[in-house]
Amino acid sequence: MTLDDARALDADDPLRGLRDRFALPEGIIYLDGNSLGPLPWITAERLDDLVHRQWGERLIRSWNEAGWTEAPTRIGDKIARLIGAAPGEVVATDSTSVCLFKLVSAAATLRDGAIAAQADGFPTDRYLAQTIAAQLGRPFRAVTDAGAALAPDVAVALLAEVDYRSGARLDMAALQARAAATGTHLVWDLSHSAGAVPIDLQAAGATLAVGCGYKYLNGGPGAPAFLHVGRPLQAMLPPVIAGWWAHDRPFDFSPEFRPASGITRFLSGTPPMLALAALEAGVDLMLEADATQLRDKGTALWTLFTDEVSRRCPSLVLRTPRDPAARGSHALFEHPHALAIVRAGIERGVIGDYRPTGLARFGITPMTLSYQDVWRAAAILGDVVNGEAWRDLRFQAGGVVT
Amino acid sequence: MTLDDARALDADDPLRGLRDRFALPEGIIYLDGNSLGPLPWITAERLDDLVHRQWGERLIRSWNEAGWTEAPTRIGDKIARLIGAAPGEVVATDSTSVCLFKLVSAAATLRDGAIAAQADGFPTDRYLAQTIAAQLGRPFRAVTDAGAALAPDVAVALLAEVDYRSGARLDMAALQARAAATGTHLVWDLSHSAGAVPIDLQAAGATLAVGCGYKYLNGGPGAPAFLHVGRPLQAMLPPVIAGWWAHDRPFDFSPEFRPASGITRFLSGTPPMLALAALEAGVDLMLEADATQLRDKGTALWTLFTDEVSRRCPSLVLRTPRDPAARGSHALFEHPHALAIVRAGIERGVIGDYRPTGLARFGITPMTLSYQDVWRAAAILGDVVNGEAWRDLRFQAGGVVT
Repeated sequence: MTLDDARALDADDPLRGLRDRFALPEGIIYLDGNSLGPLPWITAERLDDLVHRQWGERLIRSWNEAGWTEAPTRIGDKIARLIGAAPGEVVATDSTSVCLFKLVSAAATLRDGAIAAQADGFPTDRYLAQTIAAQLGRPFRAVTDAGAALAPDVAVALLAEVDYRSGARLDMAALQARAAATGTHLVWDLSHSAGAVPIDLQAAGATLAVGCGYKYLNGGPGAPAFLHVGRPLQAMLPPVIAGWWAHDRPFDFSPEFRPASGITRFLSGTPPMLALAALEAGVDLMLEADATQLRDKGTALWTLFTDEVSRRCPSLVLRTPRDPAARGSHALFEHPHALAIVRAGIERGVIGDYRPTGLARFGITPMTLSYQDVWRAAAILGDVVNGEAWRDLRFQAGGVVT
Repeated sequence: MTLDDARALDADDPLRGLRDRFALPEGIIYLDGNSLGPLPWITAERLDDLVHRQWGERLIRSWNEAGWTEAPTRIGDKIARLIGAAPGEVVATDSTSVCLFKLVSAAATLRDGAIAAQADGFPTDRYLAQTIAAQLGRPFRAVTDAGAALAPDVAVALLAEVDYRSGARLDMAALQARAAATGTHLVWDLSHSAGAVPIDLQAAGATLAVGCGYKYLNGGPGAPAFLHVGRPLQAMLPPVIAGWWAHDRPFDFSPEFRPASGITRFLSGTPPMLALAALEAGVDLMLEADATQLRDKGTALWTLFTDEVSRRCPSLVLRTPRDPAARGSHALFEHPHALAIVRAGIERGVIGDYRPTGLARFGITPMTLSYQDVWRAAAILGDVVNGEAWRDLRFQAGGVVT
């Protein structure tokens, strides 16, 4: 593959117009959309309207006239289309951590038994499963093999569909079938898969899921998460954080708590409108793209990038499965000096991120990257690893956000 | 009091410059800052920078270089100055409902006993206290007299310092002294008092509090809340929603959960930066104002407004205590046709809000209102109530947000 080959692929790319919809800075190849998606131009416009007109001029009236009150469910219904859920099964609200807390705690009320999470999954998932188990007086089980989380004595299992480091993707349908056999309630963390890979919760039989708004959905730093509960399960799950927006009729200000019968029982406080408006813009943009074209381009970009990096830098060991069905859309490489490599790449305009220990992570997002982008990124990483500059870099504490 | 008198007071007002710092629309007198504070101009500027430069251009790098990572504690320390707390005792995070859930649930672990809330308080407070009690297998007690919540068999009492309807203010120091005697952990909901009245948590001996960012702090629609835990109590309270930001070193991505020793153990997920930036701007603006001048002007405005409304509209019955020490900064009037009056006022440019049943609420905020504003608002309400137009208005379902 040459740069000219990449140029030819870009010329034929049916999605090439999407990249211009984002505010991608000059001189930067951004391979960290898996951590913080870039700014869509439409988001800046929508926020400007929200701030100056809806908030500034219309003030409190916007709760009714600008659709603020319906924002969590309206955005939820849009996200539902991205993840194979039905309308009325998703809300956008709170942080990923808070949403996971709600669903794991609620699902645990359905039966006795342990709460399980992946031993090497994203820290929040494990911390939450462990602390919720302690709060409820249940055993906690950390599993290295996801399938082991599904056992007759496990009440709730929290699994990430795509691993935040390796990018390895679980077989959702197969694990749901196993969960049905053991009676385990499976809560899916879609943080690294929603917007990155095609998801069909209904086809897989998945009934409980949470995902992140600020990664592939391009919702902005710390964007609200989304929470999915299959309709038959909604009325069976208690609203664990029963703020006034969980009420069937919040604006009655009734002293008696009567939870909403549908998905809004999983809301809590007043919706964060600035954050939700940005999330909605990102989701709207993603819904414009053809899902099949996104998947195909994502696969082609990923293969181009990992092939080129592996060819130029044999010392970088790919830790992500090559099979598109078995991975998300980021790529993880292991190297003893991964931190220095990531830092040197950033200095040269290739933004990836580092994860402990010795892991360099690169997000390959088909909406915002061209074939030339990933070809050039691989070339720059090759220069870094095959040059001497990166050896001089000092390892520094801290890092960038997942 | 004549309009000329009000003009003279404005000319002498040392805070008169503050009003111009807000985007108050022409032809509107906004008496609903107690529900959604208006837009400070500086907020629009800060958000523009956050969106275009920090997110758009600097992308993931802003977590480190733009102070995003420290935002919850940095803003918390600023809010601490408004409520008489020490640095390191406050974080800005999540919604009011989620923050209240965290503190009430955590405080309940400290001792056995009932969980109490005000029977006629804001719905979230009662719903949360009741559902948390059920989750923990504790008795729930709804009290009509706040003092009754402090009893030897009550483990945690959740009390609003200022009532969201009547505006009546509790004596925080007296109730804390009583709580100390009964061993009850008192959680204060400061939603209708923070930014509205001078608060000194340390002087009152208060150790647990939550407040709202989108009312008097002018943080924008659905702004993050703040959460206060006195330093000696921090290490004793479990982080109930133990997301990765509650960890002592979140960026280690350690599989073992080791909660932060300080206030950040009450964080959960990634901070919502758009929302936090707006909140910080509102708080910064409030810190520019002299607290004593704010209090004095607030008292004078409130008296002018309620006197003029009562004089012009004897049928509107004031339900807020007149004593400045016994109330917040909003005024509540009862009238059988309060909904129609509020709607007719809004049509004439006076924005207040309605609360069931038969209650008209008006926020009197000294940062954003002039003496002429409140004089004119009272005159317009007088025209409404003494005219015939409002009688024709139909009562409609729904309302505006608290």
